[in-house]
Amino acid sequence: MSSTLEPQPETAAVVIIGDEVLTGKTQDTNSHWLAAELYALGVSLERVVVIPDRVEVIAQTVAELSTRFGVVFTSGGVGPTHDDLTYAGVARAFGVPLQRSEELVERIRLHYRGPLNEERLKMADIPRPDELCFTEGMLTPVVRIRNVLMLPGVPELFRQLVGAMRERFRLRPVFLGEIFTRQAEGDIAAALNSVVALHPLVRIGSYPRLGRSPYRVKITVESHEEQVAQAAYDEILSRLEADGVVDQHSVAVVVPPAGHLE
Amino acid sequence: MSSTLEPQPETAAVVIIGDEVLTGKTQDTNSHWLAAELYALGVSLERVVVIPDRVEVIAQTVAELSTRFGVVFTSGGVGPTHDDLTYAGVARAFGVPLQRSEELVERIRLHYRGPLNEERLKMADIPRPDELCFTEGMLTPVVRIRNVLMLPGVPELFRQLVGAMRERFRLRPVFLGEIFTRQAEGDIAAALNSVVALHPLVRIGSYPRLGRSPYRVKITVESHEEQVAQAAYDEILSRLEADGVVDQHSVAVVVPPAGHLE
Repeated sequence: MSSTLEPQPETAAVVIIGDEVLTGKTQDTNSHWLAAELYALGVSLERVVVIPDRVEVIAQTVAELSTRFGVVFTSGGVGPTHDDLTYAGVARAFGVPLQRSEELVERIRLHYRGPLNEERLKMADIPRPDELCFTEGMLTPVVRIRNVLMLPGVPELFRQLVGAMRERFRLRPVFLGEIFTRQAEGDIAAALNSVVALHPLVRIGSYPRLGRSPYRVKITVESHEEQVAQAAYDEILSRLEADGVVDQHSVAVVVPPAGHLE
Repeated sequence: MSSTLEPQPETAAVVIIGDEVLTGKTQDTNSHWLAAELYALGVSLERVVVIPDRVEVIAQTVAELSTRFGVVFTSGGVGPTHDDLTYAGVARAFGVPLQRSEELVERIRLHYRGPLNEERLKMADIPRPDELCFTEGMLTPVVRIRNVLMLPGVPELFRQLVGAMRERFRLRPVFLGEIFTRQAEGDIAAALNSVVALHPLVRIGSYPRLGRSPYRVKITVESHEEQVAQAAYDEILSRLEADGVVDQHSVAVVVPPAGHLE
Protein backbone atom coordinates (compact mmCIF):
# COMPACT_ATOMS: atom_id res chain seq x y z
CA MET A 1 0.00 0.00 0.00
CA SER A 2 1.31 3.45 -0.87
CA SER A 3 1.73 6.10 1.80
CA THR A 4 -1.67 7.30 2.92
CA LEU A 5 -0.45 10.89 2.95
CA GLU A 6 -0.04 11.10 -0.80
CA PRO A 7 -3.05 12.49 -2.62
CA GLN A 8 -4.86 9.80 -4.57
CA PRO A 9 -6.76 11.30 -7.51
CA GLU A 10 -9.06 8.33 -7.91
CA THR A 11 -10.25 8.53 -4.33
CA ALA A 12 -12.85 10.61 -2.55
CA ALA A 13 -14.02 11.53 0.93
CA VAL A 14 -17.31 13.00 2.12
CA VAL A 15 -17.68 15.28 5.13
CA ILE A 16 -21.18 15.61 6.55
CA ILE A 17 -21.36 18.74 8.69
CA GLY A 18 -24.21 18.93 11.15
CA ASP A 19 -25.12 18.58 14.80
CA GLU A 20 -28.54 17.35 13.69
CA VAL A 21 -26.97 14.17 12.30
CA LEU A 22 -24.77 13.56 15.37
CA THR A 23 -27.77 13.92 17.69
CA GLY A 24 -29.87 11.51 15.64
CA LYS A 25 -32.49 14.10 14.75
CA THR A 26 -31.78 13.75 11.04
CA GLN A 27 -30.57 10.70 9.17
CA ASP A 28 -27.93 11.70 6.67
CA THR A 29 -28.86 10.34 3.25
CA ASN A 30 -26.43 12.41 1.16
CA SER A 31 -23.44 10.21 1.88
CA HIS A 32 -25.30 7.04 0.90
CA TRP A 33 -26.57 8.58 -2.31
CA LEU A 34 -23.15 9.99 -3.21
CA ALA A 35 -21.46 6.67 -2.36
CA ALA A 36 -23.62 4.90 -4.94
CA GLU A 37 -22.95 7.66 -7.49
CA LEU A 38 -19.20 7.56 -7.04
CA TYR A 39 -19.20 3.77 -7.15
CA ALA A 40 -20.94 3.83 -10.52
CA LEU A 41 -18.44 6.43 -11.75
CA GLY A 42 -15.49 4.26 -10.73
CA VAL A 43 -14.29 6.61 -7.98
CA SER A 44 -13.23 4.92 -4.76
CA LEU A 45 -14.94 6.51 -1.77
CA GLU A 46 -12.52 6.01 1.12
CA ARG A 47 -14.10 7.92 4.01
CA VAL A 48 -17.36 9.36 5.21
CA VAL A 49 -16.91 11.59 8.26
CA VAL A 50 -19.75 13.22 10.19
CA ILE A 51 -18.64 16.21 12.27
CA PRO A 52 -20.29 18.91 14.40
CA ASP A 53 -20.95 22.53 13.41
CA ARG A 54 -17.63 23.87 14.73
CA VAL A 55 -15.17 25.90 12.69
CA GLU A 56 -12.08 24.26 14.25
CA VAL A 57 -13.34 20.74 13.59
CA ILE A 58 -14.37 21.55 10.03
CA ALA A 59 -10.95 23.11 9.38
CA GLN A 60 -8.99 20.21 10.82
CA THR A 61 -11.08 17.53 9.09
CA VAL A 62 -11.04 19.18 5.66
CA ALA A 63 -7.31 19.94 5.88
CA GLU A 64 -6.50 16.31 6.62
CA LEU A 65 -8.85 14.72 4.09
CA SER A 66 -7.93 17.07 1.26
CA THR A 67 -4.30 16.03 1.61
CA ARG A 68 -5.07 12.33 1.63
CA PHE A 69 -7.77 11.93 -0.99
CA GLY A 70 -8.36 13.07 -4.55
CA VAL A 71 -11.58 14.98 -3.99
CA VAL A 72 -13.46 16.00 -0.85
CA PHE A 73 -17.18 16.76 -0.84
CA THR A 74 -18.68 18.66 2.07
CA SER A 75 -22.40 18.60 2.79
CA GLY A 76 -24.18 21.21 4.89
CA GLY A 77 -23.44 24.44 6.71
CA VAL A 78 -23.69 26.90 3.80
CA GLY A 79 -26.87 28.79 4.78
CA PRO A 80 -27.48 32.14 6.47
CA THR A 81 -27.73 31.16 10.16
CA HIS A 82 -25.23 31.09 13.03
CA ASP A 83 -24.72 27.32 12.73
CA ASP A 84 -23.67 27.55 9.05
CA LEU A 85 -19.88 27.46 9.36
CA THR A 86 -18.57 25.44 6.43
CA TYR A 87 -17.14 28.32 4.40
CA ALA A 88 -15.39 29.66 7.51
CA GLY A 89 -14.06 26.20 8.36
CA VAL A 90 -12.71 25.49 4.88
CA ALA A 91 -11.15 28.97 4.72
CA ARG A 92 -9.34 28.19 7.94
CA ALA A 93 -8.30 24.76 6.64
CA PHE A 94 -6.36 26.48 3.86
CA GLY A 95 -5.30 29.55 5.86
CA VAL A 96 -7.18 31.96 3.60
CA PRO A 97 -9.68 34.67 4.55
CA LEU A 98 -13.40 34.75 3.84
CA GLN A 99 -14.28 37.40 1.30
CA ARG A 100 -17.56 38.58 -0.14
CA SER A 101 -18.10 37.31 -3.66
CA GLU A 102 -19.70 40.07 -5.74
CA GLU A 103 -20.93 37.47 -8.20
CA LEU A 104 -22.76 35.65 -5.43
CA VAL A 105 -24.15 38.87 -3.97
CA GLU A 106 -25.61 39.74 -7.35
CA ARG A 107 -27.20 36.32 -7.70
CA ILE A 108 -28.65 36.44 -4.19
CA ARG A 109 -30.01 39.91 -4.94
CA LEU A 110 -31.68 38.72 -8.15
CA HIS A 111 -33.08 35.66 -6.38
CA TYR A 112 -34.71 37.58 -3.52
CA ARG A 113 -35.66 40.61 -5.65
CA GLY A 114 -35.22 43.07 -2.85
CA PRO A 115 -32.90 44.52 -0.30
CA LEU A 116 -30.62 41.93 1.33
CA ASN A 117 -30.06 41.64 5.05
CA GLU A 118 -26.64 40.86 6.51
CA GLU A 119 -27.60 37.24 7.18
CA ARG A 120 -28.40 36.54 3.51
CA LEU A 121 -25.22 38.33 2.46
CA LYS A 122 -23.30 35.94 4.71
CA MET A 123 -24.01 33.25 2.10
CA ALA A 124 -21.72 35.22 -0.24
CA ASP A 125 -18.80 35.23 2.21
CA ILE A 126 -16.62 32.42 0.93
CA PRO A 127 -12.95 31.53 0.75
CA ARG A 128 -11.70 32.84 -2.62
CA PRO A 129 -12.78 29.97 -4.86
CA ASP A 130 -10.92 28.26 -7.62
CA GLU A 131 -14.33 27.67 -9.16
CA LEU A 132 -17.92 28.70 -8.60
CA CYS A 133 -20.17 26.18 -10.24
CA PHE A 134 -23.75 27.31 -10.85
CA THR A 135 -26.63 25.10 -11.94
CA GLU A 136 -29.51 26.65 -13.83
CA GLY A 137 -32.47 27.54 -11.66
CA MET A 138 -30.55 27.15 -8.41
CA LEU A 139 -29.27 29.89 -6.15
CA THR A 140 -26.68 27.89 -4.21
CA PRO A 141 -23.45 27.23 -6.11
CA VAL A 142 -20.88 24.55 -5.59
CA VAL A 143 -17.89 26.43 -4.20
CA ARG A 144 -14.61 24.72 -5.03
CA ILE A 145 -11.28 25.54 -3.47
CA ARG A 146 -8.45 23.21 -4.50
CA ASN A 147 -9.90 19.67 -4.32
CA VAL A 148 -12.71 20.54 -1.89
CA LEU A 149 -16.26 20.95 -3.17
CA MET A 150 -18.71 22.60 -0.77
CA LEU A 151 -22.35 21.61 -1.18
CA PRO A 152 -25.56 22.37 0.69
CA GLY A 153 -26.93 19.67 2.98
CA VAL A 154 -30.56 19.82 1.80
CA PRO A 155 -30.83 16.49 -0.07
CA GLU A 156 -32.69 17.87 -3.12
CA LEU A 157 -30.02 20.53 -3.67
CA PHE A 158 -27.13 18.20 -2.92
CA ARG A 159 -28.27 15.67 -5.52
CA GLN A 160 -29.04 18.22 -8.22
CA LEU A 161 -25.67 19.92 -7.83
CA VAL A 162 -23.65 16.71 -7.79
CA GLY A 163 -25.69 15.38 -10.69
CA ALA A 164 -24.87 18.47 -12.75
CA MET A 165 -21.12 17.90 -12.36
CA ARG A 166 -21.21 14.09 -12.42
CA GLU A 167 -19.31 13.62 -15.69
CA ARG A 168 -16.16 15.32 -14.53
CA PHE A 169 -15.63 12.49 -12.03
CA ARG A 170 -16.21 9.56 -14.34
CA LEU A 171 -13.32 7.11 -14.38
CA ARG A 172 -13.76 3.44 -15.17
CA PRO A 173 -16.92 1.36 -14.96
CA VAL A 174 -17.28 -1.23 -12.21
CA PHE A 175 -18.71 -4.69 -12.88
CA LEU A 176 -20.68 -6.34 -10.10
CA GLY A 177 -22.23 -9.77 -9.64
CA GLU A 178 -24.28 -10.92 -6.63
CA ILE A 179 -25.13 -14.36 -5.30
CA PHE A 180 -27.70 -15.01 -2.54
CA THR A 181 -27.35 -18.25 -0.61
CA ARG A 182 -29.17 -20.03 2.18
CA GLN A 183 -25.85 -21.47 3.40
CA ALA A 184 -24.42 -19.93 6.58
CA GLU A 185 -21.45 -17.57 6.42
CA GLY A 186 -19.32 -19.91 8.51
CA ASP A 187 -19.97 -22.74 6.05
CA ILE A 188 -18.96 -20.84 2.92
CA ALA A 189 -16.04 -18.84 4.35
CA ALA A 190 -13.42 -21.43 3.33
CA ALA A 191 -14.73 -21.49 -0.26
CA LEU A 192 -14.64 -17.70 -0.40
CA ASN A 193 -11.11 -17.65 0.97
CA SER A 194 -9.95 -19.93 -1.86
CA VAL A 195 -11.56 -17.73 -4.49
CA VAL A 196 -10.09 -14.59 -2.88
CA ALA A 197 -6.64 -16.22 -3.15
CA LEU A 198 -7.21 -17.25 -6.78
CA HIS A 199 -8.54 -13.84 -7.87
CA PRO A 200 -6.51 -11.15 -6.12
CA LEU A 201 -7.82 -8.38 -8.39
CA VAL A 202 -11.44 -9.08 -7.58
CA ARG A 203 -13.11 -7.60 -4.53
CA ILE A 204 -15.33 -10.16 -2.86
CA GLY A 205 -17.79 -9.25 -0.11
CA SER A 206 -19.88 -11.39 2.21
CA TYR A 207 -22.93 -9.93 3.96
CA PRO A 208 -25.01 -11.99 6.39
CA ARG A 209 -28.68 -11.33 6.84
CA LEU A 210 -30.80 -12.22 9.86
CA GLY A 211 -34.48 -12.73 10.45
CA ARG A 212 -37.15 -13.41 7.88
CA SER A 213 -34.98 -13.29 4.82
CA PRO A 214 -35.03 -15.79 1.95
CA TYR A 215 -31.21 -15.88 2.04
CA ARG A 216 -28.59 -15.93 4.77
CA VAL A 217 -25.62 -14.43 2.93
CA LYS A 218 -25.23 -12.07 -0.01
CA ILE A 219 -21.92 -12.50 -1.82
CA THR A 220 -20.68 -9.67 -4.02
CA VAL A 221 -17.99 -9.90 -6.72
CA GLU A 222 -16.51 -6.71 -8.18
CA SER A 223 -13.85 -5.67 -10.64
CA HIS A 224 -13.10 -3.00 -13.23
CA GLU A 225 -12.64 -5.91 -15.68
CA GLU A 226 -15.84 -7.69 -16.64
CA GLN A 227 -14.21 -11.02 -17.53
CA VAL A 228 -12.18 -11.04 -14.34
CA ALA A 229 -15.31 -10.51 -12.24
CA GLN A 230 -17.19 -13.14 -14.23
CA ALA A 231 -14.48 -15.75 -13.66
CA ALA A 232 -14.53 -15.21 -9.89
CA TYR A 233 -18.33 -15.24 -9.91
CA ASP A 234 -18.42 -18.58 -11.75
CA GLU A 235 -15.77 -19.97 -9.43
CA ILE A 236 -17.80 -19.06 -6.34
CA LEU A 237 -21.00 -20.51 -7.78
CA SER A 238 -19.21 -23.79 -8.51
CA ARG A 239 -18.11 -24.02 -4.86
CA LEU A 240 -21.50 -23.36 -3.27
CA GLU A 241 -24.23 -25.92 -2.74
CA ALA A 242 -26.37 -25.54 -5.86
CA ASP A 243 -29.70 -25.89 -4.06
CA GLY A 244 -28.63 -23.31 -1.45
CA VAL A 245 -28.45 -20.52 -4.05
CA VAL A 246 -31.79 -18.71 -3.96
CA ASP A 247 -31.01 -15.84 -6.30
CA GLN A 248 -28.17 -14.55 -8.44
CA HIS A 249 -27.45 -11.40 -10.44
CA SER A 250 -24.85 -12.17 -13.06
CA VAL A 251 -21.94 -9.78 -13.55
CA ALA A 252 -23.06 -6.46 -15.09
CA VAL A 253 -21.93 -2.87 -15.17
CA VAL A 254 -22.93 -0.77 -12.16
CA VAL A 255 -25.26 2.12 -13.00
CA PRO A 256 -25.83 5.18 -10.81
CA PRO A 257 -28.97 5.47 -8.70
CA ALA A 258 -31.84 7.62 -9.95
CA GLY A 259 -31.13 11.32 -9.42
CA HIS A 260 -34.36 12.02 -7.59
CA LEU A 261 -35.16 11.35 -3.97
CA GLU A 262 -36.64 7.98 -3.08
CA MET B 1 -12.15 24.73 23.97
CA SER B 2 -9.86 22.21 25.62
CA SER B 3 -7.19 20.41 23.63
CA THR B 4 -8.83 17.90 21.34
CA LEU B 5 -6.13 15.36 22.17
CA GLU B 6 -7.29 14.94 25.76
CA PRO B 7 -9.77 12.14 26.24
CA GLN B 8 -13.25 13.46 26.96
CA PRO B 9 -15.27 10.92 28.93
CA GLU B 10 -18.62 12.42 28.01
CA THR B 11 -17.95 12.09 24.31
CA ALA B 12 -18.28 9.26 21.84
CA ALA B 13 -17.29 8.29 18.30
CA VAL B 14 -18.68 5.60 16.01
CA VAL B 15 -16.65 3.74 13.39
CA ILE B 16 -18.64 2.00 10.67
CA ILE B 17 -16.44 -0.60 9.00
CA GLY B 18 -17.54 -1.81 5.61
CA ASP B 19 -16.87 -1.52 1.90
CA GLU B 20 -20.57 -2.14 1.33
CA VAL B 21 -21.40 1.24 2.88
CA LEU B 22 -18.66 3.12 0.99
CA THR B 23 -19.86 1.69 -2.33
CA GLY B 24 -23.48 2.62 -1.61
CA LYS B 25 -24.70 -0.98 -1.65
CA THR B 26 -25.87 -0.75 1.95
CA GLN B 27 -27.13 2.28 3.81
CA ASP B 28 -25.66 2.35 7.30
CA THR B 29 -28.46 2.75 9.83
CA ASN B 30 -26.48 1.82 12.96
CA SER B 31 -24.85 5.22 13.33
CA HIS B 32 -28.18 7.04 13.08
CA TRP B 33 -29.81 4.75 15.61
CA LEU B 34 -26.87 4.99 18.02
CA ALA B 35 -26.72 8.78 17.60
CA ALA B 36 -30.31 9.07 18.82
CA GLU B 37 -29.60 6.66 21.70
CA LEU B 38 -26.53 8.55 22.86
CA TYR B 39 -28.30 11.86 22.55
CA ALA B 40 -31.07 10.65 24.86
CA LEU B 41 -28.43 9.37 27.29
CA GLY B 42 -26.72 12.75 27.39
CA VAL B 43 -23.52 11.52 25.67
CA SER B 44 -22.12 13.86 23.03
CA LEU B 45 -21.46 11.98 19.79
CA GLU B 46 -18.57 13.86 18.18
CA ARG B 47 -17.72 11.76 15.11
CA VAL B 48 -19.08 9.11 12.80
CA VAL B 49 -16.43 7.71 10.49
CA VAL B 50 -17.08 5.17 7.74
CA ILE B 51 -13.96 3.28 6.65
CA PRO B 52 -13.11 0.37 4.33
CA ASP B 53 -12.38 -3.24 5.33
CA ARG B 54 -8.61 -2.74 5.70
CA VAL B 55 -6.62 -3.61 8.79
CA GLU B 56 -4.31 -0.58 8.52
CA VAL B 57 -7.18 1.87 8.20
CA ILE B 58 -9.12 0.29 11.06
CA ALA B 59 -6.01 0.41 13.25
CA GLN B 60 -5.20 4.03 12.47
CA THR B 61 -8.80 5.24 12.86
CA VAL B 62 -9.45 3.42 16.14
CA ALA B 63 -6.10 4.49 17.60
CA GLU B 64 -6.82 8.15 16.88
CA LEU B 65 -10.45 8.21 17.98
CA SER B 66 -9.85 6.23 21.19
CA THR B 67 -7.35 8.88 22.28
CA ARG B 68 -9.63 11.77 21.52
CA PHE B 69 -13.04 10.59 22.71
CA GLY B 70 -14.47 8.93 25.78
CA VAL B 71 -15.87 5.83 24.13
CA VAL B 72 -15.55 4.41 20.62
CA PHE B 73 -18.10 2.03 19.14
CA THR B 74 -17.17 -0.02 16.09
CA SER B 75 -19.80 -1.61 13.87
CA GLY B 76 -19.10 -4.50 11.50
CA GLY B 77 -16.28 -6.81 10.52
CA VAL B 78 -16.57 -9.41 13.30
CA GLY B 79 -17.77 -12.42 11.27
CA PRO B 80 -15.99 -15.48 9.85
CA THR B 81 -15.08 -14.31 6.32
CA HIS B 82 -11.96 -12.80 4.77
CA ASP B 83 -13.42 -9.27 4.87
CA ASP B 84 -14.03 -9.39 8.64
CA LEU B 85 -11.00 -7.54 9.96
CA THR B 86 -12.13 -5.48 12.93
CA TYR B 87 -10.54 -7.58 15.68
CA ALA B 88 -7.25 -7.61 13.77
CA GLY B 89 -7.44 -3.86 13.19
CA VAL B 90 -8.18 -2.99 16.82
CA ALA B 91 -5.44 -5.37 18.00
CA ARG B 92 -3.01 -3.48 15.78
CA ALA B 93 -4.35 -0.13 17.01
CA PHE B 94 -3.22 -1.06 20.52
CA GLY B 95 -0.14 -3.06 19.51
CA VAL B 96 -1.44 -6.29 21.02
CA PRO B 97 -1.75 -9.73 19.40
CA LEU B 98 -4.92 -11.59 18.47
CA GLN B 99 -5.43 -14.60 20.68
CA ARG B 100 -8.06 -17.31 20.71
CA SER B 101 -10.58 -16.82 23.52
CA GLU B 102 -11.44 -20.21 25.01
CA GLU B 103 -14.63 -18.77 26.43
CA LEU B 104 -15.72 -17.70 22.95
CA VAL B 105 -14.69 -21.02 21.41
CA GLU B 106 -16.88 -22.82 23.94
CA ARG B 107 -19.84 -20.59 23.21
CA ILE B 108 -19.43 -20.96 19.45
CA ARG B 109 -19.22 -24.74 19.92
CA LEU B 110 -22.43 -24.81 21.97
CA HIS B 111 -24.18 -22.58 19.46
CA TYR B 112 -23.37 -24.66 16.39
CA ARG B 113 -23.62 -28.01 18.22
CA GLY B 114 -20.96 -29.67 16.15
CA PRO B 115 -17.40 -29.60 14.98
CA LEU B 116 -16.13 -26.11 14.21
CA ASN B 117 -14.25 -25.18 11.07
CA GLU B 118 -11.31 -22.76 11.12
CA GLU B 119 -13.46 -19.95 9.73
CA ARG B 120 -15.95 -20.09 12.59
CA LEU B 121 -13.08 -20.32 15.09
CA LYS B 122 -11.73 -17.08 13.62
CA MET B 123 -14.63 -15.33 15.38
CA ALA B 124 -12.91 -16.28 18.67
CA ASP B 125 -9.59 -14.67 17.69
CA ILE B 126 -9.74 -11.34 19.47
CA PRO B 127 -7.34 -8.88 21.09
CA ARG B 128 -7.20 -9.83 24.79
CA PRO B 129 -10.30 -8.04 26.03
CA ASP B 130 -10.78 -5.97 29.12
CA GLU B 131 -14.36 -7.19 29.01
CA LEU B 132 -16.46 -9.70 27.10
CA CYS B 133 -20.08 -8.68 27.36
CA PHE B 134 -22.61 -11.41 26.53
CA THR B 135 -26.32 -10.89 26.05
CA GLU B 136 -28.67 -13.78 26.69
CA GLY B 137 -29.65 -15.70 23.59
CA MET B 138 -26.96 -14.12 21.42
CA LEU B 139 -23.75 -15.69 20.23
CA THR B 140 -21.83 -12.52 19.35
CA PRO B 141 -20.42 -10.67 22.37
CA VAL B 142 -19.42 -7.08 22.70
CA VAL B 143 -15.62 -7.18 22.91
CA ARG B 144 -14.20 -4.27 24.85
CA ILE B 145 -10.56 -3.29 24.96
CA ARG B 146 -9.86 -0.04 26.83
CA ASN B 147 -12.54 2.43 25.66
CA VAL B 148 -13.31 0.63 22.37
CA LEU B 149 -16.44 -1.50 22.08
CA MET B 150 -16.58 -3.83 19.07
CA LEU B 151 -20.06 -4.67 17.79
CA PRO B 152 -21.42 -6.62 14.83
CA GLY B 153 -22.78 -4.61 11.89
CA VAL B 154 -26.03 -6.53 11.45
CA PRO B 155 -28.55 -3.93 12.67
CA GLU B 156 -30.67 -6.33 14.77
CA LEU B 157 -27.60 -7.51 16.68
CA PHE B 158 -26.09 -4.04 16.97
CA ARG B 159 -29.23 -2.62 18.54
CA GLN B 160 -29.79 -5.50 20.93
CA LEU B 161 -26.21 -5.42 22.19
CA VAL B 162 -26.10 -1.65 22.65
CA GLY B 163 -29.53 -1.75 24.26
CA ALA B 164 -28.33 -4.32 26.79
CA MET B 165 -25.50 -2.06 27.97
CA ARG B 166 -27.34 1.24 27.56
CA GLU B 167 -27.46 2.20 31.25
CA ARG B 168 -23.72 2.27 31.72
CA PHE B 169 -23.55 5.28 29.40
CA ARG B 170 -26.33 7.34 30.92
CA LEU B 171 -25.22 10.84 31.90
CA ARG B 172 -27.57 13.78 32.03
CA PRO B 173 -30.92 14.19 30.29
CA VAL B 174 -31.23 16.61 27.37
CA PHE B 175 -34.22 18.93 26.99
CA LEU B 176 -35.37 19.77 23.48
CA GLY B 177 -37.94 22.13 22.03
CA GLU B 178 -38.83 22.52 18.34
CA ILE B 179 -40.49 25.31 16.41
CA PHE B 180 -41.62 25.01 12.76
CA THR B 181 -42.05 28.23 10.82
CA ARG B 182 -43.10 29.27 7.33
CA GLN B 183 -40.65 32.20 7.48
CA ALA B 184 -37.50 31.84 5.39
CA GLU B 185 -34.16 31.12 7.05
CA GLY B 186 -32.68 34.39 5.80
CA ASP B 187 -35.53 36.32 7.44
CA ILE B 188 -35.18 34.75 10.89
CA ALA B 189 -31.38 34.48 11.05
CA ALA B 190 -30.95 37.86 12.79
CA ALA B 191 -33.51 36.92 15.46
CA LEU B 192 -31.76 33.59 16.04
CA ASN B 193 -28.39 35.33 16.29
CA SER B 194 -29.72 37.57 19.08
CA VAL B 195 -31.09 34.60 21.02
CA VAL B 196 -27.82 32.69 20.54
CA ALA B 197 -25.97 35.67 22.02
CA LEU B 198 -28.41 35.95 24.95
CA HIS B 199 -28.35 32.21 25.75
CA PRO B 200 -24.79 30.95 25.32
CA LEU B 201 -25.50 27.67 27.13
CA VAL B 202 -28.32 26.71 24.78
CA ARG B 203 -27.66 24.97 21.50
CA ILE B 204 -29.87 26.38 18.78
CA GLY B 205 -30.23 24.73 15.37
CA SER B 206 -31.87 25.92 12.17
CA TYR B 207 -32.85 23.43 9.47
CA PRO B 208 -34.39 24.57 6.18
CA ARG B 209 -36.78 22.34 4.30
CA LEU B 210 -37.58 22.47 0.59
CA GLY B 211 -40.45 21.30 -1.57
CA ARG B 212 -43.93 20.37 -0.44
CA SER B 213 -43.46 20.94 3.25
CA PRO B 214 -45.86 22.81 5.55
CA TYR B 215 -42.87 24.64 7.06
CA ARG B 216 -39.69 26.20 5.71
CA VAL B 217 -37.45 26.04 8.77
CA LYS B 218 -37.31 23.83 11.84
CA ILE B 219 -35.66 25.53 14.82
CA THR B 220 -34.33 23.37 17.64
CA VAL B 221 -33.47 24.51 21.17
CA GLU B 222 -31.45 22.23 23.46
CA SER B 223 -29.93 22.27 26.91
CA HIS B 224 -29.21 19.99 29.83
CA GLU B 225 -31.21 22.49 31.92
CA GLU B 226 -34.94 22.49 31.25
CA GLN B 227 -35.56 26.09 32.38
CA VAL B 228 -32.63 27.37 30.34
CA ALA B 229 -33.95 25.69 27.20
CA GLN B 230 -37.47 26.93 27.90
CA ALA B 231 -36.30 30.54 28.27
CA ALA B 232 -34.53 30.45 24.90
CA TYR B 233 -37.51 28.71 23.31
CA ASP B 234 -39.89 31.42 24.55
CA GLU B 235 -37.48 34.13 23.43
CA ILE B 236 -37.35 32.72 19.91
CA LEU B 237 -41.13 32.36 19.69
CA SER B 238 -41.52 36.01 20.75
CA ARG B 239 -39.24 37.10 17.89
CA LEU B 240 -40.93 35.15 15.10
CA GLU B 241 -44.02 36.20 13.20
CA ALA B 242 -46.82 34.54 15.16
CA ASP B 243 -48.84 33.53 12.10
CA GLY B 244 -45.73 32.00 10.48
CA VAL B 245 -45.41 29.35 13.20
CA VAL B 246 -47.15 26.24 11.91
CA ASP B 247 -46.19 23.82 14.67
CA GLN B 248 -44.28 23.75 17.93
CA HIS B 249 -43.11 21.09 20.37
CA SER B 250 -42.54 22.67 23.75
CA VAL B 251 -39.37 21.85 25.69
CA ALA B 252 -39.36 18.25 26.96
CA VAL B 253 -36.86 15.59 27.91
CA VAL B 254 -35.41 13.60 25.00
CA VAL B 255 -36.27 9.89 25.08
CA PRO B 256 -34.40 7.18 23.19
CA PRO B 257 -35.81 5.69 20.00
CA ALA B 258 -37.57 2.34 20.12
CA GLY B 259 -35.08 -0.53 20.33
CA HIS B 260 -36.52 -2.44 17.41
CA LEU B 261 -35.94 -1.83 13.73
CA GLU B 262 -38.26 0.57 11.94
